[in-house]
Parts: sequence; structure tokens; C-alpha cells
Amino acid sequence: MKIISSTPKADGFYMPAEFAPHYGCIMIFPERPDSWQFGGYAARKAFVQVAEAVSRSERVTVCASQKQYENARRMLPDNIRVVEMSSNDSWARDYAPTFVTNGGEIRGVNWGFNAWGGLEDGLYFPWDLDNKMARKLCDLYNKDMYDLGNFILEGGSIHVDGEGTCITTEACLLSRGRNPMLTKAEIENYLCEYLNVTKVIWLKNGIYGDETNEHVDNICAFVKPSEVVLAWTDDENDPQYALSKSCLDILTRETDAKGREFTVHKLRCPKPVTITDEECSGLDTMNFQPTRTPGERLAASYVNFYIANGAVVMPFFGDRADEPARELLETLFPEREVIPVYARDILIGGGNIHCITQQIPLFK
Amino acid sequence: MKIISSTPKADGFYMPAEFAPHYGCIMIFPERPDSWQFGGYAARKAFVQVAEAVSRSERVTVCASQKQYENARRMLPDNIRVVEMSSNDSWARDYAPTFVTNGGEIRGVNWGFNAWGGLEDGLYFPWDLDNKMARKLCDLYNKDMYDLGNFILEGGSIHVDGEGTCITTEACLLSRGRNPMLTKAEIENYLCEYLNVTKVIWLKNGIYGDETNEHVDNICAFVKPSEVVLAWTDDENDPQYALSKSCLDILTRETDAKGREFTVHKLRCPKPVTITDEECSGLDTMNFQPTRTPGERLAASYVNFYIANGAVVMPFFGDRADEPARELLETLFPEREVIPVYARDILIGGGNIHCITQQIPLFK
Repeated sequence: MKIISSTPKADGFYMPAEFAPHYGCIMIFPERPDSWQFGGYAARKAFVQVAEAVSRSERVTVCASQKQYENARRMLPDNIRVVEMSSNDSWARDYAPTFVTNGGEIRGVNWGFNAWGGLEDGLYFPWDLDNKMARKLCDLYNKDMYDLGNFILEGGSIHVDGEGTCITTEACLLSRGRNPMLTKAEIENYLCEYLNVTKVIWLKNGIYGDETNEHVDNICAFVKPSEVVLAWTDDENDPQYALSKSCLDILTRETDAKGREFTVHKLRCPKPVTITDEECSGLDTMNFQPTRTPGERLAASYVNFYIANGAVVMPFFGDRADEPARELLETLFPEREVIPVYARDILIGGGNIHCITQQIPLFK
Repeated sequence: MKIISSTPKADGFYMPAEFAPHYGCIMIFPERPDSWQFGGYAARKAFVQVAEAVSRSERVTVCASQKQYENARRMLPDNIRVVEMSSNDSWARDYAPTFVTNGGEIRGVNWGFNAWGGLEDGLYFPWDLDNKMARKLCDLYNKDMYDLGNFILEGGSIHVDGEGTCITTEACLLSRGRNPMLTKAEIENYLCEYLNVTKVIWLKNGIYGDETNEHVDNICAFVKPSEVVLAWTDDENDPQYALSKSCLDILTRETDAKGREFTVHKLRCPKPVTITDEECSGLDTMNFQPTRTPGERLAASYVNFYIANGAVVMPFFGDRADEPARELLETLFPEREVIPVYARDILIGGGNIHCITQQIPLFK
């Protein structure tokens, strides 16, 4: 594994869209008891369901700690590879490499990771093992790597169409906990160089209460070039309404890198999901403080799905909006099977199915 | 990765000779300070030299602990893959899988490992992480596995010619610390079934003082079918003489699985190598006891080489016998480059170059 000192753009590499063909998918087995209720037992079952659903149409590798390796191997089906790799938590989207391709070969990009805000408003400390994962994963797959470890970015904070357009949120990328010394233009320049895009669309916000500083992958996702789904609510009294409406306004007036207008599909959110007393009682404290408060609203959104080669794996919340969301995704992805996974136990950890997966583009 | 409940013999799989083509080689980065003097710094340099020499002609993967991962990545060249994997020590020969092939596909065999003798005369405790490595490595390479975890065997205690013959030592395989409830015939049957050989040649002993209970890979190795090198001394007063002579007598009267007589090349040992006060001072204690005594004789032998696709990587000891040993191996392996590595710092850990490597046969 070589560290490459040029940039993907300079070398003709770009980040393909998630709906482009995959070699496989990376996940991380959940373990930390201040993120996952009751020692992670419920979350692991949900992760296994996601891994199994993805593995029906692409290769899945699950990274597990030394302590959880045996358990992961026992719980996961034979066709899924388990490798030992240490981490602080289980968000493959955010700290597995972002892979770029030149249409044949692939390479990884290592962004810096500081637990969504470092000492400013990060969610845990330390994050050193997470921050090493991109490098270890490039090594595991024998892929060379662009190292941008001094620039803080999570994979969940960007979405691309593979045709020159990136969507992100100001709430996240301009947050004080990431790259406060950089201007918006400088940050945009990093995206253009390392994702090899020519246009960055800046939404203002994401999902209400999303503790990642409102990652784009929880509110808006490409389903094809110039076509997106947007998390939505019709309830104007819900604090989510203004956030989603702002995104809609921006997407309505913007065009993509190729000058096309966007088609925006509203993907209506479930009723607000709040964590219960019982669930909170199953979360260990962190630094002597609880990590969740009973009644706290969780950032539930159906947009947080994963597009596998043959499937769209989407979260269900046991809500009346589950089925309409499934139907919309079935319409938008007619050639893929839409596989719902009951994801409350992932949501409690602070993210959802897209957050716990990272695709590896197909390579030759 | 699937666990296969049949046997290699039943499925037409066999262990190929080490001189047959390889896909690659597995090694483990040394770390434990009661095995490797002065915190492993010198041993790591020697391991890196071995890995680099092997990597000139085949793929090398080095397993490193979470703590040593960065250091391994820094010390090893780019063309060597480093993966995180926990272990108790660094003897890939003994607890990486034994791979078997059907001429196209390969599979792993997992033997039980108990640190060369378990609670009877094992060398450290615990050995749980080592014992899990074969399984983890089969998973890493996406290879199915025969699981013989209840039968204690180390890879260093067997050598095969790939044509039906296995050589081993009674001192090791019949030791009380391994499978004391099995008869010699039962042990032989396991070898026949899982290596798919039809003849097992039982040498009595190995190298004097070899704490593995005298592994065959330190005293005798195939260089081609029906042709072996044997560690030798001409000094009849050396306790090694009787051990080597006994091996020679057995090899002289035995034939291999195909009925061929053996050609035996004497590979003369260096002068006895003993550990110094200074070296012992750099070894941490284990269970409050020193692991070596100043003046203790180490089991130095040139037979403990590794046959890579394009090289024979052999130990040097700074002895007058180094060059004659190199010349003999150059004669016996005319199509391979003989690469010596100064191996005193590996020897102090209790083994040598063959002990720290495990080949993966070429597969399609």
C-alpha cells in the first residue's frame, strides 16, 4: 500500500456514485456500551441483518475487535468475511476510506476523523482507532491511498452523483469542530480535488437533532444523476419542516455539474422517534455522564439507506410511514430489491444503515 | 469462510511441498518482551529483512497487533500488506493454517495449538490468541477450513514432499504435552487424513535443546522429492551428533511414499550458539521467572530456512559455517537466490526463519 501525494483529480480518479457497481461493502461490528444499548446485543442483530441483506448482491467484510471477533464470526453468515480490526465505534461510512476510481483501478482517500467535532462538540474521546481505519482498510485491500488526514471529513457528510456533483451541508462542513481555520471556498476546493467534482451544492441543514452536525446522508441522497430523495415532513410545526423546506428551495433553484435541474422526491419521515427510559437504562455512561436523555428525539430518516448492487437496504421504524417510504424507494429503484431492516437499535447509536456501511466501487 | 467437516484426503486435497509455487507468505510482527530481547526492536529488524527478502518473489502479509500496527507499517516496505491481528507471539509456521490444495482451489487446516506443550511443558500461557489465528487467516483469505482444533499440532513439526511423504519427529508428536491420549498410529492417521500423505517417516529427535520438543523443521527439510538436508555436526562429542546420526540412519534405511531412497545432504551447524548475559538482561520475565539463562545453548540450525518462489531465505549466525551452508543451499536450489539474514535476534526468541513464515500455495 503506497501513500500517494498527488490528488485524485490530478490523477483522473473520481468518487463514483453509490448506485454505480460495487466490488463490495465494509461494515464494523458494534460493541461500545455507551453507544449501543444493553451491551450492543440488539444492535449486533440489526447490523447482522444489514450485512446479510447487502451480502446477497456484493462481498461484505465486517471488521470486529479482538474481543468481538468470535461473536461476529458466529453471528454472521459464512459468505461474509470477518477481519480483526480495532475501532472506537462502528461507523464505517464515516471513517472507512472514500474510494475513488479511474474506471479500472481504485484508490482510497483518508480524511481526518475527530468523532464529529473533536474537542469542540465531538461525540466521544478518544477516536484514534477510528482515525486509523481508512489506512488499515486500504492496506487490507491492497489499495493505494491519498492521505488527507489533516482535513476533517466524514463519508456521511458528502453524497456524489459520479458526474461532477457533490451535495453536502453547511451545518456540518462549516462546523467549528472540524476545519475552523479553512474558509468555505477552501473546503469546497478540497472536495473538488479529492472527490473530483466540479460543483458542490451546499444545503444549509440536515435532520433535526442529528448529532453528526447534520450529515447530508440522513436528509438527501442521489437515486440517479439529477434526481434525489429528500427527507420531508408535511407538519409545519415540526422543527424538521423548516430544515427540509430550506433544502428543497436550494435544490429547486440549483442545477448540477452538468447544468441539469434536480427532480426532488419527498421521502416522508416517521413520526418523531424518542428514546425511552428503558432504552436509556441500557446505555453505559461516558465520562460519568449519560449519553442519552429519556424522551430525547432521535434523528430518524428513511434517507439513510444503502444502495447495494442488487438491493436498497432501508431502515424501518415500526411507523405508519414505513410502507409509503418503501413504496417510493421501490419506484425509484425498479431494478433493485428494497430490503427493510428494523433499525431502531441502530438509530439509538446515532445513525442508520447508510452510516454503518461503506461501498467499495467495482475494480478490475 | 465455511468450516468443512470432511477431511482433505476425502476431498482430494493435499499439502503441497514448500518448494511448489506459492501464492504468498504469512508472517506475524514480533512484540512480546519475554520472547524478544529489549522489547523486540532487534527482532523486528530481522523479521523485516526476512519479509522483504520473501516479498521479492511472492506476496507477503504481516499480521500486527493493534499496538504494533503503525510501527509495522512504518518499518515494512509498501509492497507488503500489514493487517491487524492479535496473537500471543509471532510463530506463523506453527499457528497459521496449513494450506492444502486440489491443484486449483486451496483450503486451510486448523490444528489445535497449545504453545508447544500446554500445561505440561508449554512455553507460555495463555495461547488463546495464537490458537485463533488459523481461523482468522482462513477468513482473511476467504478460504474454507478443515477444523482439527482438538488435535494439537504445529506447522513446524511436519515437512512434506507433496508426493505422499511426511517427515516428523517422535520427540515432538509423541510428547506428553500434545496428544497424550492418542497412540502413534492414531497420530499418524491424522497426518495421513489431513495432509493426505501415505507414508510418515518418524525421526526420533530434532535439534539439541530445541524447546519446541524438537520440531522437524529445524533439523531436516525437503529440497525436492526424495532429497533432504539434515542438520549435522562432525563433532562426536557434541550432544547434537547422536541426534543427527539417528536421523541419518533412519533416512538411510527408509524410502519415501513412492519407494524412492533418500539423498541426504549434511548441512553443518554453526558452533554452539549461547545467549549472553547482556541478551538475557533484555528479556522480560514471565510469571516472575527468567525465560533464558545466560550461557544457555540456543537451537541454531541452517535447516530453518524458508523456500520462497524465487529465493531461499536462510539464517546466518556470524559463524564460519555460514558460507559453506549458503554454498550448499545454492547448489541444491540452483534456480533460487539464496538470501541470508543475520538471525541471532530471531533465534533468541526460540526459532528461526522457517518458524516465522507460513506459505500459501498458489491457487487459481
